[in-house]
Amino acid sequence: MTDLPLAPGSTIGILGGGQLGRMLAVAASRLGFDIVILDPDPDPPAGRVSAHAIPAPYDDPRALEALAAAASLVTYEFENVPAGAVAKLAEIGVEVAPGPLALKVAQDRWEEKTFLNANGAATVAFAKADTAEEAVAAVETVGAPALMKTRREGYDGKGQRWVEHAAEADRAFAELGGVPVILEAAAAFERELSIIAARGRDGSMAVYPLAENHHENGILRRSIAPARLSPQAREQAERIAARILTGLDYVGVIGVELFEMAGGNLLVNEIAPRVHNTGHWTMDGCAVDQFEQHIRAVAGWPLGPTHAIARVEMLNLLGDEVDGWRRFAGEPETRVHLYGKREAKPGRKMGHVNRVKAL
Amino acid sequence: MTDLPLAPGSTIGILGGGQLGRMLAVAASRLGFDIVILDPDPDPPAGRVSAHAIPAPYDDPRALEALAAAASLVTYEFENVPAGAVAKLAEIGVEVAPGPLALKVAQDRWEEKTFLNANGAATVAFAKADTAEEAVAAVETVGAPALMKTRREGYDGKGQRWVEHAAEADRAFAELGGVPVILEAAAAFERELSIIAARGRDGSMAVYPLAENHHENGILRRSIAPARLSPQAREQAERIAARILTGLDYVGVIGVELFEMAGGNLLVNEIAPRVHNTGHWTMDGCAVDQFEQHIRAVAGWPLGPTHAIARVEMLNLLGDEVDGWRRFAGEPETRVHLYGKREAKPGRKMGHVNRVKAL
Repeated sequence: MTDLPLAPGSTIGILGGGQLGRMLAVAASRLGFDIVILDPDPDPPAGRVSAHAIPAPYDDPRALEALAAAASLVTYEFENVPAGAVAKLAEIGVEVAPGPLALKVAQDRWEEKTFLNANGAATVAFAKADTAEEAVAAVETVGAPALMKTRREGYDGKGQRWVEHAAEADRAFAELGGVPVILEAAAAFERELSIIAARGRDGSMAVYPLAENHHENGILRRSIAPARLSPQAREQAERIAARILTGLDYVGVIGVELFEMAGGNLLVNEIAPRVHNTGHWTMDGCAVDQFEQHIRAVAGWPLGPTHAIARVEMLNLLGDEVDGWRRFAGEPETRVHLYGKREAKPGRKMGHVNRVKAL
Repeated sequence: MTDLPLAPGSTIGILGGGQLGRMLAVAASRLGFDIVILDPDPDPPAGRVSAHAIPAPYDDPRALEALAAAASLVTYEFENVPAGAVAKLAEIGVEVAPGPLALKVAQDRWEEKTFLNANGAATVAFAKADTAEEAVAAVETVGAPALMKTRREGYDGKGQRWVEHAAEADRAFAELGGVPVILEAAAAFERELSIIAARGRDGSMAVYPLAENHHENGILRRSIAPARLSPQAREQAERIAARILTGLDYVGVIGVELFEMAGGNLLVNEIAPRVHNTGHWTMDGCAVDQFEQHIRAVAGWPLGPTHAIARVEMLNLLGDEVDGWRRFAGEPETRVHLYGKREAKPGRKMGHVNRVKAL
């Protein structure tokens, strides 16, 4: 067993070496930890700010053994960690946080919504389908238009189709590969919001102010935080976050995406058992950002303060938008965060800027 | 020649991989740069947050060639970089910033004070001595008690002796190794202050609010910033910083240590052509800290804002004081910065904490 709180000088393993792993690694280094990254990419962005990197598939047994030998505990930057990898790490005896229940729930959209509803967090109506016939029936159940999503994988709008009429469901089902899907009723939401929250080893919780989020083509474009909303809506969001964290016996930072409906009621869209793009504003808007908070939580340290010290507009830099660095660098109110990715493919998250104003 | 402003994705070399190099590396990574460290230590603190580390003496020609091959430009975390190393890098054609004049002046206490006085920055009275006889005469010139310091090397109170009477100067001279020294008149100062300032490639300048500093046994113990002082004193400090930066045709961040005399007049104690321990408060007290500011300056980016957004008490963690991390981690107002050093030798700078309050 790992001695907690984890002492500075210890090594923390991270599955995944993208921008989230990179920002986690930087936050961990500030607290005196060393980082080892496991990522199939031989030159992942996080590897260049970490003590070690192991280039191997996530489920490579020897790589997992090397990771376990180097690290006192392991966390991850993305929810689609193979279940076998986590089982292997558990078998070796190295702790993985957040734990297996969070991964199980987050990896399957049907499990996720079922868990949410069972824990008092409302969602849109939904139904699952394993066949084309079930897909048609599911659209009839939830009502058209409905959003068909693969139960597993898929991010940034990938792996989903709108179905306008039940009769089109079989074609959409085939287009998504004939894999198990979930059908979701359309949410006539007013705004997309999110809440970033953390739970420590001792069950203590900390929630950040909500962010208002704007997506384009399924990809987050910008967040504004703290979002303006009623005290009632804020309390509802915090209650939802607390129920999810407790229900998952969670350790670490979680991102909860919300729909604000007409009248102010909140539905949960989805959860991400990790640091979250809509929490990047905390890097310049809070004394302890979501990355340090996650490291504090998994390392068994006390959680840090979460109140806003500034108002932030976070703008994702997608693809060649990163070429705007010269302009952003010259804006006094703009903090530049670039991820060190070699190639600016269209839609790829290359960095973000936080435009900071007084509260 | 390196294209400036330096584009993200480029590599910056740093001579020295201690805590200053580490915090520079982290700041550079945030702007999308890769870092290569040159340090004789095979496992320097900065190496574990950098893309590459070259373990070799600073004046190793092959190591310098490898550094120059990897990096678009080179900077340093300490002023005692061997002149030969900088000459070698210049010969290869890789730019070093801050430039050779700053190093020449900062490496020799007599050159330094001579430069300061020539540029309108007052210091205590001083005289140089190359022999025991000259040392006695120098004490008679500046008046006893006088502080004898080796002209070169020495930091954190090392390489210096108080001389109470001129007759004792020959013994002190021998104790310091018989090397060239400088004698300084005692400064009956009220407070020790410092100003951290930056100058960009285009000659633009930015100065941070002053810090009030407290030393113990020649080692910085704590800084409080912004220091409370009169507008006149602040203007004098800013004028001094500007004259030094201009006089050195400086690029990067500089630390200027000041004595505040009775009545408020400021004398310069010494300058450090690098990021400075008394500027660590900027990590939590300013939107752009001294580390990012230095990277911006040497990379030819516009300088960032320097106004305080909070009031900070910075406390150095020396030796086993770093074991207090559990307590500091539990203080909501305290930000923890640990350097990843393996061994907590007495007096060694292991980390610092910034205690943050509203302005």
